[in-house]
Amino acid sequence: MCETCGCGDPELVPVEVQEGLLAANDHRAKHNREHFDVAGVLAINLMGSPGSGKTALLEATAQRFERSSLSALSGDLATERDAERLSAAGIESRAITTGSACHLDAELVHRGLDQLSWRESDFLFIENVGNLVCPAIYDLGQDANVVALAVTEGEDKPLKYPVMFHRADLVLLTKVDLLPALPNLNVTAIEDALARTMPEPHMIPVSAVNGEGVEEWTEWLKKRRLGVARRWAV
Amino acid sequence: MCETCGCGDPELVPVEVQEGLLAANDHRAKHNREHFDVAGVLAINLMGSPGSGKTALLEATAQRFERSSLSALSGDLATERDAERLSAAGIESRAITTGSACHLDAELVHRGLDQLSWRESDFLFIENVGNLVCPAIYDLGQDANVVALAVTEGEDKPLKYPVMFHRADLVLLTKVDLLPALPNLNVTAIEDALARTMPEPHMIPVSAVNGEGVEEWTEWLKKRRLGVARRWAV
Repeated sequence: MCETCGCGDPELVPVEVQEGLLAANDHRAKHNREHFDVAGVLAINLMGSPGSGKTALLEATAQRFERSSLSALSGDLATERDAERLSAAGIESRAITTGSACHLDAELVHRGLDQLSWRESDFLFIENVGNLVCPAIYDLGQDANVVALAVTEGEDKPLKYPVMFHRADLVLLTKVDLLPALPNLNVTAIEDALARTMPEPHMIPVSAVNGEGVEEWTEWLKKRRLGVARRWAV
Repeated sequence: MCETCGCGDPELVPVEVQEGLLAANDHRAKHNREHFDVAGVLAINLMGSPGSGKTALLEATAQRFERSSLSALSGDLATERDAERLSAAGIESRAITTGSACHLDAELVHRGLDQLSWRESDFLFIENVGNLVCPAIYDLGQDANVVALAVTEGEDKPLKYPVMFHRADLVLLTKVDLLPALPNLNVTAIEDALARTMPEPHMIPVSAVNGEGVEEWTEWLKKRRLGVARRWAV
């Protein structure tokens, strides 16, 4: 078991402890989801490797929406840098510092919500800790999982981290402005790997630097919220 | 607790379970270390984010050594791709697929050693699962921790993932061939962040594409092995 995050060898952790933890998290996630539904806010769990460009993408996203329509919780082991960057970009944000845990959980998100006027927004982004493994396991109450995958990470990450991509509703292929500097990268191979891991493959190439794909991504967000609004209206 | 890797909320995991797991791992790591010492092999725990260039760096490293002097264990959740790439580059390698655990542990490494003629090499690279958090927590019996940090990951990762960098003996700043495509990146800020997190800051800029820094890195490896050989000789 990690001295920091509780991450350990599943063979040595009693099954009842494992099941109890996930069940407790699922219960809290359901509670968060009820909050989101009542408020009519679309919650997105934004995941990806460290440095995959999650924060930069949200900064670019902020330029396409009304100032009050986006809110965010930013998870990191330490520092409040991402939340500060998002606030500066016009997204009301709070940091969740996990100390040393490698992922957010529903309880941390619930506590974060108390510090944010998220109910007044249309979209809540939960920017998870940079990690392609554990963040996918913990339900936070979100409506959708979105994974940022940078072109600089190579072609094979979906195959090597299948748990993450199997649970992704959308993959944002970030930093595509760097493609000219990566002559050996095969984007088709990335699409093939996603087709083998995502239940419903969907990838949008984006760049926070030159704005490529940001409109398609914001349209996806708006459509997703409309779909959920219909469910809310029932 | 992750259903996959046992990663969970430390507040909810009994302290005795956590302590027992780490103590069991430390015991096995000590056993691995004794193996390495007896064989006179320098073991390196190579860590970094997914896509930080760990495998590419080892491929470049292989060109600077005799074919039999390097061996490797490659950790990933799924696929044997990295071990296959390293074998093709002339490094005898075996894959350790963790299924879904976000890090290697000493027991997995011990089992991997049984499948490898590592005793005939001078250096054993243990390429950990791509993750900037949990791999730093688990002692594998290695002599040194080396962290690959790609220039594309930005300046602030050492501050946001302090556990990893606090335990690093050396940071390889990878993909420096991409620096011309990153005009806003401030390498001095990376060095400053490392100075605030590494007990003895040491960074080597490297590129597996153009070979920059690979000689300095191989010299570091040879010196490190000489230092350890003196200890072995006592």
